[in-house]
Parts: sequence; structure tokens; C-alpha cells
Amino acid sequence: MTYETIDYTTRDGIATITLNRPSQLNAFTVQMADELVDAYTRVNTDDDARAVVVTGAGRAFCAGMDLSATGNVFGLGVDHDPTLEDMHERLDDPDIKARVRDTGGRVTLAMYACTKPVIGAINGAAVGIGATMTLPMDVRLASSKARVGFVFGRLGIVPEACSSWFLPRLVGISRALEWSYRADILSADEVHDGGLVRSVHEPDELLPAAYALAHSFVDGHSAVGIALTRQMMWRNAAQPHPLEAHRIDSLAMYYTSMNDGVEGVHAFLEKRPAQFTGSASRDLPPFYPWQE
Amino acid sequence: MTYETIDYTTRDGIATITLNRPSQLNAFTVQMADELVDAYTRVNTDDDARAVVVTGAGRAFCAGMDLSATGNVFGLGVDHDPTLEDMHERLDDPDIKARVRDTGGRVTLAMYACTKPVIGAINGAAVGIGATMTLPMDVRLASSKARVGFVFGRLGIVPEACSSWFLPRLVGISRALEWSYRADILSADEVHDGGLVRSVHEPDELLPAAYALAHSFVDGHSAVGIALTRQMMWRNAAQPHPLEAHRIDSLAMYYTSMNDGVEGVHAFLEKRPAQFTGSASRDLPPFYPWQE
Amino acid sequence: MTYETIDYTTRDGIATITLNRPSQLNAFTVQMADELVDAYTRVNTDDDARAVVVTGAGRAFCAGMDLSATGNVFGLGVDHDPTLEDMHERLDDPDIKARVRDTGGRVTLAMYACTKPVIGAINGAAVGIGATMTLPMDVRLASSKARVGFVFGRLGIVPEACSSWFLPRLVGISRALEWSYRADILSADEVHDGGLVRSVHEPDELLPAAYALAHSFVDGHSAVGIALTRQMMWRNAAQPHPLEAHRIDSLAMYYTSMNDGVEGVHAFLEKRPAQFTGSASRDLPPFYPWQE
Repeated sequence: MTYETIDYTTRDGIATITLNRPSQLNAFTVQMADELVDAYTRVNTDDDARAVVVTGAGRAFCAGMDLSATGNVFGLGVDHDPTLEDMHERLDDPDIKARVRDTGGRVTLAMYACTKPVIGAINGAAVGIGATMTLPMDVRLASSKARVGFVFGRLGIVPEACSSWFLPRLVGISRALEWSYRADILSADEVHDGGLVRSVHEPDELLPAAYALAHSFVDGHSAVGIALTRQMMWRNAAQPHPLEAHRIDSLAMYYTSMNDGVEGVHAFLEKRPAQFTGSASRDLPPFYPWQE
Repeated sequence: MTYETIDYTTRDGIATITLNRPSQLNAFTVQMADELVDAYTRVNTDDDARAVVVTGAGRAFCAGMDLSATGNVFGLGVDHDPTLEDMHERLDDPDIKARVRDTGGRVTLAMYACTKPVIGAINGAAVGIGATMTLPMDVRLASSKARVGFVFGRLGIVPEACSSWFLPRLVGISRALEWSYRADILSADEVHDGGLVRSVHEPDELLPAAYALAHSFVDGHSAVGIALTRQMMWRNAAQPHPLEAHRIDSLAMYYTSMNDGVEGVHAFLEKRPAQFTGSASRDLPPFYPWQE
Repeated sequence: MTYETIDYTTRDGIATITLNRPSQLNAFTVQMADELVDAYTRVNTDDDARAVVVTGAGRAFCAGMDLSATGNVFGLGVDHDPTLEDMHERLDDPDIKARVRDTGGRVTLAMYACTKPVIGAINGAAVGIGATMTLPMDVRLASSKARVGFVFGRLGIVPEACSSWFLPRLVGISRALEWSYRADILSADEVHDGGLVRSVHEPDELLPAAYALAHSFVDGHSAVGIALTRQMMWRNAAQPHPLEAHRIDSLAMYYTSMNDGVEGVHAFLEKRPAQFTGSASRDLPPFYPWQE
């Protein structure tokens, strides 16, 4: 797929996905959604991308859904009004997929399934889907010029992109509700105080900080270990009992211990840097993905 | 239902529920439980109540279960000692409902099902059920004179009112356990530091702050959007996978986009305040309530 | 069971479990795992142990898996490579138990099932399993000399001991991922700021603080109430709906109200200290343990 609304580059082992409609403040369209889903999936098979940094071109991160484009929010329509049963039994039915399923949710579910660490570098306005698309990232950094708004309430609609699942995990249920009810624009400091972003940076220092963090996550580490760690943390923590985590981490230890783990332990005992060879695209163990 | 232990009033679109047994420090009784369940349900059909503020008359919020009243904690008895199977299969059986089910839990489950934002204004002592009944509120504000105690451990009983579900969500599992084990009285500052209350106010400024916050939550916003947002945040965040949130928010976007969302987007594009007409009592979409 | 790698003592109603291989920095072995599982289970039947403090002998808490010992990480092997189905259907099969199941997970699941409050006194290095074994403790205190490392990523393996379930609960998903990706050594202040430890103490003041906290948790409280409180908080909070908590706390209130609760309320009304007689080893109500 050739991208027209985003940019995908790789350098020094880090992929950068740039929302790239700067004259429209990187407003979100169905095309951008399709390209982002493709890009987050592509990351999983791109061994040159050991981590991902996501940012916006120009002065905004993403100003929200492009309401001037057709077919985004309105114009939906299927043969009958969709039911909860449809959403359980016909999720991949073309009609449901195109006309009922939330576009932002397709993006965040692809990001959730990503096997590389994802770091958001929020360089400016992140509003609506521009805010909610950052929630499945592992860590968010913000420019002091960042502004974040969960503004759905002002438009007569609801938080989307699975944000009702992600946002309370990141900032607690009480703050998640307050920000969604108020539906106003939050400063970089307020989202930092609330725990949504890890740190606030001068605009010029935002991307360097994001890349430095990305390198600290992956340099010299096992790509297979990182991929499993990401998926285990997000998935196992949401299970109703730790026994389910035990099932998964036992299998993950079993397989990694026979592969990159052998080199890791030898290197540790020999006090030298490890040389891991496992690939996150080829060498994930057979039980992965579980829970699908 | 006419209320004797609480007061229910509506003004400027905000309902106020006042625990109203001031000479008994608003101690909780079965009658108060029944009246609170009725009031939280009434809110859902009262279009004049766009948000709810809950406070106590006099110097206390609620000093806990009224141990001088009969039939509250003791005197329980059914034909056989209840089993976990009973609680799954006979929850609405009159015997189980009256003699086994925790009274506080009936109140907090009604509050959980509420379709309007609920703000607690904790004006004084909130002890036992007086503390746990605040947990399903969306936001808690405290007077500097507030005192909060999860004191069940001192009485030889256990935290109730579903607080084992709610409290760890609000303050983390470690602090929830510490406060429950210690079972002592916490100051306003300690519960603020722990994340239980959003802010601490001078006594005279507590209710004004609560009403100002309530107005910021609902003025100019869609009542249908707010109702769905509240239920989505509380319910979806507790699911084991974000896909379940995607199912629900897709449906919620589908229906709101064809109703208040049309006005919301037009108003946004025309740079004017939106005039939403949807009612949370009449216009919730057909898939609501889900998960019942 | 006689312990060779740990020490188990009881004094003033508080059990102390000491990791006791100081010349190996208390490095973890399969023998230590078996002894810890035994000790956490023993606590449940030891009425002299009303709470548990866990610490390390010498200058470390636990430096991680003893990689010099055989049979810890490597040497695994079963008749076929294990599948997710095996982990659901054959978890207690001797082959799976000995050769596939993560050793650290056996320890943390035993700690999860403990009916007494568990307080970690992290006196020095807590690395790898030395870090993850502290996560199911209710509260962690740290010496200013403590160092904590979720270093699995540097060894080509993955976080274990159910830490993908526990760590996000304690520090949030974003910080849990960052610490696991970085896989480096964190100072006492950093883990305190992140919410992993409750407080940081001068080395000489660590154990006194842990015992003082333990006494505040149990002195004068009902052992049955405490046992149920611990299990309710950990288990109910992870359920997808508060109704499940209501089922459990209704039963717990029913049974405690007829036992230690009678004395608790009488003592409260008579303004005297309660004299609870219930034993956590003999008097847990018939519905306990649920969810097994």
C-alpha cells in the first residue's frame, strides 16, 4: 500500500509514522484510518522497525475527524439498524465493517496488536480521534504546545476508538469520566498531571526525547522478548485471574528460554553484551497470538 | 415514593440528593437504602436532572449503618445458609433479596446504572457505608472537615456495597487494602493524596464547587451522549479485551451520529452553540442497556 | 517441611519470611520456590501469624534467579512442546508442572491465595524474580538502598511470575511497559514515585516500619474479616461487573455478621475494644474459596 495521508520511514531501527496532512492539521479520514491500520500491521513484519514513534507533520498532531470529508460520521446505513448480536456475530461482514464499525477503533485495535513498542510524540493539537488514537500507545510524550481534547460530548456523540477501555486504564475512571464530560481542551501540563503523558518537552526536544526513549527500549534487547512482553502486559492484566497470566508467561518462558534466552544467560555470565538473533516477524512462538 | 430519610430536589438542571437524618448524622437504614435506590432510578427518568450532586444534611455526610435500628446487620435468616449458587441463581428471590443481599450493594448497583453524572460533595464524616456509597460516584469533592473511614475491619465484618470492586479502581489495590486493613478514620488530605477525592474545599465552598463542576459536565452537552459515555466508561473498561468496547462504541456512534450528532456537527461547522434535543429518558438507543 | 533457603519465624502475631541465602544474595532456586510455596500456605493455617513480613538476609532482597544452579531456566523438556491447550487442561500434570510451569508463578499464586496481609520489606537489590515476587504483596516498603529491576528483557526472556497481571495494577500499564522494556535497575525513589512502594526508609528503620504497619493492620481486628477482605479486594476488583462483588460481599457479610460481627457491634456500642475469636484457619465461611 502506498500512503498518501501518512508517512512511514525507518532509521536506526526505529520506525516513524507521521500523520501527514499538515494543511488540514492532519485531520483524520477513512483513508488515513486504512493507511494507519496497514502501517501498524506492516511494523509487525518489518525487522528494521524495532520500535515506533508516532507524530504529526506541521503544528498539529491530529485535529480530529475531518468533518468536511463525506462518509466519515454520517451517511452510514445498512439493511437494518445494527444490533449487539450483529456486533458479536457479523463483525467482519462487509456491511458491518464498512458502515457500522467505528473507524477509529479499527486503528486502535491494530495498534493494540502491534508487536513493537509504540511511543507517541504529541507535537500539537490532539483532539477527538487525534486524542483517542494515542491511548493504545505504550508511552506518550508531549510538547509544551500540545493540547488534548476528548471533545465528543460537544458534538453530541460518544468517546470512540475503544477509548472507554483504554482511557480509564491510563488515568483512572474518575478522571476519564471528568475529561469526557467536560469535553474541553486540556493543556500539556494537565494531561501530564493526570498521568496521560509521561513527560512534557520543549517543542524542539520532543522528537529527540522520543527517539532516545525508543532506543532505551530496544537497543541490545531481544525483539522476540519485547514483542511477547508488550502483548502479555496489555492482555494479561485485563484477565479476571492471575492464573491466566501464569498460563501465558509459562509458555513464553519455555520458548524464549530455548532461544534468545540461551544467548542472554551466556552473555550475562560472560559479562558481555548479548547478541540476540530472534526476529519478531519470524520467530514468535507457536502459541502466539493467544486469545484470538 | 415519598422520601423520609433523604431529600430530592432539582434546580437549574441539577438534582441534589441529600441524606437527611441530621440528628442521627445521616446514619444509614434499610429505609434509606430503599429511598436511595428509588432516587437513583428516578434520576434516569427525570429530564430536569441532567447531573446529580449527593451530600449530607448537617455536619456529617453519613456516619455509617444505624446500628440502633433492627434488621440491618443482624436478624438475617433464610431457610438454609446461602451458597454461592444461590447468589447466581436466586438473586431476585424475595428471601435472598431481603435477607442475604447486602443492602449497601443494592444502592451502589443502582448508582452504577445511573445515566447522569453523579458528584459526591462529602461535607463531613463518611464512615462505613457512608464511605462505600460514594465509590460509584463519578467524582468526589471533600470539605476540609470530611473524614472517611473504611472501618469494617474494626467491627468484625467486611467491606461491602461492592467496594472491593470500586475502591481498587479509584485508589489502586495496594492503598485499597491498606485503608481497609487499617480500618481507621482518614483525613480529607489523606483521601485527596490517595486519589479518592478530586479536590478539598473550605466547607462553605464545597457545594458551589460541586454545582460548578456539574454544570461544566452537562451545560450545552447532549444528554444522550452523556448517558452513553457514563455507562461505556464504567462497563467497557472492566472487560477483558478492547474488542468489546469496539462493539459498543461502534453502536453508540452509529445511533448518536444520526441524532444529536447531526446537530453537533452542524453547530461546530457553523461555529454556534449546539441545541441538542435528545432525552436520556426517552432516546437511548435500542442496544442500551447492554450486558444485562 | 524444613526450610534451607528461607527462614520462617513468628513473633507478636507477625510471621517473618526471610530469604536466606545471603552469600548468594538470596538468589532464587527451585528449592527456594518450593519452600516459599510451603511457607505462604503454612501461614494460612498458622494462627500465630496474623500478618507476614517478607525480607532478605544480608545486603540483598533477592538478586534474581540463581543462574549457576541447574534445572532453573533450561533443561526443560516434555514429550511435546507445550500448547495453550496443555496449560488449560493439564496444569497439574506432573510433566507440565515440573517442566513447563514458571517457577516464580507458583510462588506468586500461593501468595495471591494467602489469607493474611503480606508486607514486603525490600532491603536491597530486588532483581528479576526478586522484583516480581514482591508484586502480590499487599504493600511494599523499601530501604533507601533498595534497587529494583524488571530485567528480563536483557536476558532474552519475558516478565514472569504473573507480573504481567500484577505490575500494571500497581503502577499503571504505561509505566509497567516502560520499566519492562528498559529492563534496567530502578532506584528506591523511582519505584516510590511510580507507586510500586508505599514509602522509603533508612535501612535501620525499614523492618521497624514494616512491623508497625503490620500491627496497624491486624491488632484488635478480626482474623476472619481480614482474610475475607484480602481475597475480596484482589479477586472482585478483577471481575467484569460489580454484581460479582455484590454476590461475594453479601455472603461475606451474612456469615461474618453472625460471628465476629456480633462481638464487633456490641463492643462498638459499649465503647470497649472488641475481643474477636474467629480463626482464619478454622472459621472461614463455607463459600470460601470461591472462583476456584
